[in-house]
Amino acid sequence: MADLRRLAEFGKFGSGVDRTAFSEADLAARRWLAGRMREGGLEARIDRLGNVCGRTPGAARTVVIGSHTDTVPKGGWLDGALGVIYGLEVARARLAAGTAKDLGIEVVSFQDEEGTFLPFLGARGFCGELEETALAEAQGKDGRSLLEAIAQAEFSGAPVRLDQSRQVAYLEAHIEQGPRLEAEGRRIGVVTEIVGLRRFRLTSEGRADHAGTTPMALRRDGGAPLLAFLARLGAEFPVLGGPDTVWNIGSVALAPGASNVVPSAGEAVLEFRDGDARRLDRLEAAIRGWVAAANAGGDASLRLAPIAREAPTAMAPALGRVIAAAAQAHGIEPLWLPSGAGHDAMVVGRYIDAAMLFIPSIGGRSHDIVEDTAEADIVLGAQVLSDTVARLARRDAG
Amino acid sequence: MADLRRLAEFGKFGSGVDRTAFSEADLAARRWLAGRMREGGLEARIDRLGNVCGRTPGAARTVVIGSHTDTVPKGGWLDGALGVIYGLEVARARLAAGTAKDLGIEVVSFQDEEGTFLPFLGARGFCGELEETALAEAQGKDGRSLLEAIAQAEFSGAPVRLDQSRQVAYLEAHIEQGPRLEAEGRRIGVVTEIVGLRRFRLTSEGRADHAGTTPMALRRDGGAPLLAFLARLGAEFPVLGGPDTVWNIGSVALAPGASNVVPSAGEAVLEFRDGDARRLDRLEAAIRGWVAAANAGGDASLRLAPIAREAPTAMAPALGRVIAAAAQAHGIEPLWLPSGAGHDAMVVGRYIDAAMLFIPSIGGRSHDIVEDTAEADIVLGAQVLSDTVARLARRDAG
Repeated sequence: MADLRRLAEFGKFGSGVDRTAFSEADLAARRWLAGRMREGGLEARIDRLGNVCGRTPGAARTVVIGSHTDTVPKGGWLDGALGVIYGLEVARARLAAGTAKDLGIEVVSFQDEEGTFLPFLGARGFCGELEETALAEAQGKDGRSLLEAIAQAEFSGAPVRLDQSRQVAYLEAHIEQGPRLEAEGRRIGVVTEIVGLRRFRLTSEGRADHAGTTPMALRRDGGAPLLAFLARLGAEFPVLGGPDTVWNIGSVALAPGASNVVPSAGEAVLEFRDGDARRLDRLEAAIRGWVAAANAGGDASLRLAPIAREAPTAMAPALGRVIAAAAQAHGIEPLWLPSGAGHDAMVVGRYIDAAMLFIPSIGGRSHDIVEDTAEADIVLGAQVLSDTVARLARRDAG
Repeated sequence: MADLRRLAEFGKFGSGVDRTAFSEADLAARRWLAGRMREGGLEARIDRLGNVCGRTPGAARTVVIGSHTDTVPKGGWLDGALGVIYGLEVARARLAAGTAKDLGIEVVSFQDEEGTFLPFLGARGFCGELEETALAEAQGKDGRSLLEAIAQAEFSGAPVRLDQSRQVAYLEAHIEQGPRLEAEGRRIGVVTEIVGLRRFRLTSEGRADHAGTTPMALRRDGGAPLLAFLARLGAEFPVLGGPDTVWNIGSVALAPGASNVVPSAGEAVLEFRDGDARRLDRLEAAIRGWVAAANAGGDASLRLAPIAREAPTAMAPALGRVIAAAAQAHGIEPLWLPSGAGHDAMVVGRYIDAAMLFIPSIGGRSHDIVEDTAEADIVLGAQVLSDTVARLARRDAG
């Protein structure tokens, strides 16, 4: 708790923190973290990208425990910081207990999970997914290029990299960022998968006309077919989707936007998320079918343009069951749930077994300075994660 | 045609005109008009409000022929100017033919039909509908108050007023401002009624949440119930409305408007128009019922606020039949149609028999500098209006 609270001083903003990747606060926090790792007996370094890694010495096999210490602007104090400090705590506890030789810990704070310059920059670098052209093209929200930010940070540690010959698993703890644990009265969540996302821009074209003098039959309304489509989505997705499918129509606009002018155009942004790629395919096929059907009638001119697409990433079920067993040993029945938000585990989980542990978010709030979790839940999460590693060590030895 | 073209020089803006009420161009146009009336042998004056009236001398009974010479910003060259110049032409023709003694003409250009300061200002003043408080409160779009604009115009003629003991009818010619005449290949329209209008703001309240991490069942979406309502309107109004009912959803907005945030609120503006007040009542009752039904489910928080309401105004059928007969004498079968836009006849028609004659708008366009009508149609309209007055004079004498 003391380390979590100390870390929240870097970039403190009201009750939250503003510590975007490569900001002064972020760089200072990463240097402080490496120092705390060394004070705790870990071998620590910060690589060129800003990934901080602290490793317990001597073990041939390790578990990577990580998340990220960068935040969104005006974000919360826990978010990714929680999982990093959990890792530090577990590593120190195992060093103190003399068990770190059996199965070591590599604690990692990945850089720029939040995408100030490039989403999942550190995790993608860790996995060898980054190409130099992507690095060279990335621009930060502060006007700097990513390469300028990297140069100014002057980090020079050896690359923090995936090593499947040594690392047996990746564990990430995080606040839920949603209301389900709280709503169901559960204190620990085990993530089944990180959901995939498809996001589209839907546009519609028509012709502006006087809304009083133009009979309905002589209009080409740029708004009505769009509104009919959006309502159809709202009516049919509850049937077509699975129990955990979520969708959102976040923005709608009609042009020119005057009460007495028939809209000449409309635009909406819609997205849907699910852990099952085949279900995402079915939902996309459905909306493409509705667009085609609307346009076939001749009255509509709808166009669907993809603007984001993320594949679902399954967490390793066996690893999740170890977390669940550790929770049950504390008398806690965990909730298995998908993660509706992206995490570093989404990237790392494509290469090695990965699992995520969630603790409740008060009111489901996150990415906001009001984000918080009860201290008892924070402590319980650390204990369950520590016990998970102990169980993995026994399994690894056995 | 020469007078119409000369009038279009006042406030000329590209192929259209920008001659809003009480602008320098508008005042100059009204002075020019009064001068042309006098040159044509009419007794002309401009009253305090800016209403221009030219009366053929000597007749105990008159027909008022009017419309307005003010325009919307960047408007068309015909719009209301057409009906005023038609009146001037008919008056001059009757003076020249020596028939103006039997049934005189009062040509009127009403002030501010377009509502730069106060919609239908001149026509309402003509009918004695204006209260001093409404005059004192009206503000122009140029920052002046109406009273300042009136004072600066320095018009001082006797009030142009309704006099039912003298005026037997009101005739207004206007461009259609819609596509029906053109679409049906008709050159003359006779207006059945000026439709009534009801306009509402529909708002919806919800709660912003992360659109990935918040399950559908735990959301209070500020957008979805609004979109469902709007689609219901689009689906049911074609059944509930009459053949000439028109409606429009001109603007929709969701807040905060981010793709991955569940909308916290939504807002739309909707309107519908019809010539039958009972049908407007039924449509309003239907949408109020849908709002109540949506809110009764507990998932929605919709609110409907009226923002404009205009009663329909029937034109005098007998007077319309005289226009139709005059058209038929030219070999033209006129189209009887409602006016979806408001006109000075809407105000005047509440007090004396009124009728409107429409001529086609090319492409249905108006309130835009591209507004135009074929010259042959402009000339035909003047002839039909002139013959209409001749028929009224015979009827009045008989």
